[in-house]
Amino acid sequence: MSESTNMHGGNIYEAAREFNTASGDILDYSANINPLGIPSGVKKLIASSIESLSNYPDTDCMELRKGIARYLNIPEESIVVGNGASEIIQLIFDVLRLKKILIPAPTFSEYARAAKSAGTLVEYFEIRKEDDFKLNIDHLLSNVRDDVEGVVLCNPNNPTSQLIEKHGLLRLIEHMHKIDKLLIVDEAFIELTHGRNSNSVVESIKVFDNVFVIRAFTKVFAVPGIRLGYGIGKSSIVSEMWERKNPWSVNTFACQMGEVFETEKDYLKRTSLWLENEIIWLYNEMCKFKQFKVYKPSTNFILVEIIGGSLNAALLKRLLLDMGILIRDAGNFQFLNEKFFRIAVKDRKSNSAFLEKLREVLAMPDI
Amino acid sequence: MSESTNMHGGNIYEAAREFNTASGDILDYSANINPLGIPSGVKKLIASSIESLSNYPDTDCMELRKGIARYLNIPEESIVVGNGASEIIQLIFDVLRLKKILIPAPTFSEYARAAKSAGTLVEYFEIRKEDDFKLNIDHLLSNVRDDVEGVVLCNPNNPTSQLIEKHGLLRLIEHMHKIDKLLIVDEAFIELTHGRNSNSVVESIKVFDNVFVIRAFTKVFAVPGIRLGYGIGKSSIVSEMWERKNPWSVNTFACQMGEVFETEKDYLKRTSLWLENEIIWLYNEMCKFKQFKVYKPSTNFILVEIIGGSLNAALLKRLLLDMGILIRDAGNFQFLNEKFFRIAVKDRKSNSAFLEKLREVLAMPDI
Repeated sequence: MSESTNMHGGNIYEAAREFNTASGDILDYSANINPLGIPSGVKKLIASSIESLSNYPDTDCMELRKGIARYLNIPEESIVVGNGASEIIQLIFDVLRLKKILIPAPTFSEYARAAKSAGTLVEYFEIRKEDDFKLNIDHLLSNVRDDVEGVVLCNPNNPTSQLIEKHGLLRLIEHMHKIDKLLIVDEAFIELTHGRNSNSVVESIKVFDNVFVIRAFTKVFAVPGIRLGYGIGKSSIVSEMWERKNPWSVNTFACQMGEVFETEKDYLKRTSLWLENEIIWLYNEMCKFKQFKVYKPSTNFILVEIIGGSLNAALLKRLLLDMGILIRDAGNFQFLNEKFFRIAVKDRKSNSAFLEKLREVLAMPDI
Repeated sequence: MSESTNMHGGNIYEAAREFNTASGDILDYSANINPLGIPSGVKKLIASSIESLSNYPDTDCMELRKGIARYLNIPEESIVVGNGASEIIQLIFDVLRLKKILIPAPTFSEYARAAKSAGTLVEYFEIRKEDDFKLNIDHLLSNVRDDVEGVVLCNPNNPTSQLIEKHGLLRLIEHMHKIDKLLIVDEAFIELTHGRNSNSVVESIKVFDNVFVIRAFTKVFAVPGIRLGYGIGKSSIVSEMWERKNPWSVNTFACQMGEVFETEKDYLKRTSLWLENEIIWLYNEMCKFKQFKVYKPSTNFILVEIIGGSLNAALLKRLLLDMGILIRDAGNFQFLNEKFFRIAVKDRKSNSAFLEKLREVLAMPDI
C-alpha cells in the first residue's frame, strides 16, 4: 500500500508475504546493516528500559543530544534528532522550503520524495557510470545554476558505495558558501567506511553555516527497527526543525541511545576490523563472476551491473529469493537500469553462503 | 528547545531538570495514562522482539493493521498507522490541505499546530465554561460557515474530560455530510470512558465518507513511550496518507502490537473496573475542596478551576512539584486561564497520596 514498499531495500516482510515464507527465514542482502548485529549493551539497555515506556519520551531528547555532542565534539544546539534519518530528511525540506535543489544521482530516493512533498523542485545531476560513479566536483559545480538553492549529497553514496574524497568535498563546501547555497550531506554510512569519522564534514558546521549533515544510528549499530537519526547544522535551522517536528517522534528506547558511542567502543573497533577485511574480500569474489561488472565499494554494500545476456536484476532477485536470499533490485534508482543490483556485505559465513547460492543460480541452464 | 516543552503534560524530564530531581521520583499527575501500567503481555512481547530491531520495520505494518481491523470490525484499507496520534494528526492536515477548519476549544493544541503548519487557517469555537464545557451541537453547527471545510473534535475532550453524547455526534456527522464538510474525531481516550467503544463513531466510516477517526495505543495500554497511533477513514484519504508518511515511522516494537487487543482482554476488563470506581471517587474527593470548582469527568482526567484568592495553577504546580507531584497547568489552553489545572486519575494509593499533598499545600499560611 505505501509507496515505499517497492522502492527500498530491507523489506523482508513484503518479500516473505510475496514468496509465502517466514520473514525470519530470509537472508537479507538488500539492507546494509552492520552484520555484527545489535551490540549486547544496546540490548541490555532496551530490556532495562521497558518500564519507562509508561512515560512520554523526553521531547527535547536532552541526554541523547548530549551523547551525540560529546561523540562528535559539536554543540548540543546544532543537533536535531528524529525518527530515523528519514524524519530529518523530511524536516529539513519542510523547514527550508527551497525553490529548487540539485541531486547528484543515482542516489537514495528519499531526498527527492521529501523535497517534492515540501514543494521543492528537483533537478538531477548525473554521476556517470563511465566515471565508475565517482562524483566530479567541478562538473557538479558548473551545474549549480542561479535558481538552484541547494545540493544534496549522500556520502558514501547509496547505492554506488562511492566515497567523496574529503579534500574535494571541503572545496565544494567553500565554493557553495561563496555563492550562498546550501549543501546537505547524508552521512548515514560514514561510520562504515575505512577512516570512519575522518571522512566526515561534520566539523565544518562550526565554520560554514551552509552545511547540514544527516546521520543515523541505524546502520552502524544494526538497529533500523529502533528509528533514530539526527541532523547537524546551524542553530537557527536546527531550532526551526525542533519547532516543526512531531514532538514525540523519538521513542523511549531511542532516547536512551546517547551513551552507546562511549559504552560500545569495543564494538566499533570490531566493526572496523570486519570492514577492512570483508568488503574487499566480497568485492574480489564478486569480480570473479564474468557476468558482472562490480563497482569497487567504499562501504558495506556493493553495486553490481549484469553484463550482456538476458538476465536482469528482477529475475536474479526472484531466483535468489526462491533460495531464501533477498537482494536489492537497483533498477528504480535514477540513471540506473534493469541490469543493476545492490548487495550488502555481511559476515564471512553469510557471504560464503550468498556466493554459493549465486553460483547455483548463474549455473542454471536458462541463465 | 522544542515548542512542545512547555505546552503539554507528561514532561517529567523537563520537570526533573527544572527542579533538580530524578525523573523517576516524580508522581506524574500531568499525563493521562492507564494506571494499571503496561500489560505484562506487552512487556513480554517487547522483550522477545529485541533481536528484530536489526530488521527494518514493516513499512506496511500489515500484522498491526489486521489486528486493528479485527478489533474494530473495519476493513484494513481504512486504517493508517503512525508514530503516535500526533503523526496521524499532522498527516491528515498535510494530505487534505484544507483552507480553513473550525476547532471547538479548549482542546488539545496539536490540532491547531499541525493544521497551521500545513497552511490551514484555524478558527476556534468556544465551548463555554457556563455550559460546564459540554459541547452544544446546534450552536457549533450554526458556526460552520461556508469557508470552513472541516471540524476537529476531541471525544472525550482533553482537557475538559467531557464526552459528547453519541446520538448528538451522529446527528452532527449526518448534517456535516449533507453540507459536504469533514469531521475529524480524536478518540484517543475513548477506551477509558464508561461504555468504551460503544461511545465511538468509528463504525460510521462505513456509511459516511466525511468522517475521520484518530486513535492511539498510548493511553489505554499505558505505553506513550512506544509511539503508536492510528487513523480510520475512507480509503482514498488513507492511501494518500500512506504515500505521504515517513515510511518507517512505526518502530519494530509498535509493529507487533496488533495482537494485544485479543491477548489483553483481561487487562481491558480490569481497566474498566478501575475506571468505574476511581474516576467518581477522585471527583468526589476533589469536590470537597472549597477552593475548587471541579468539572465532572467522563474519562481518566479531571479539569479543575481555582476559585477566588491569589492562588493560580502555576503556583500550585510549583508547590506540588516541590513535593514530587507534577500536575498540568491548563492555563495555556485556548479559552482557559491561569486558574485552570488538570489532574490524572490514577490508582487509589497514588490518588490518596496526591490528595494528602494537595491538602498540605492548601493548608500553607500564604495560600
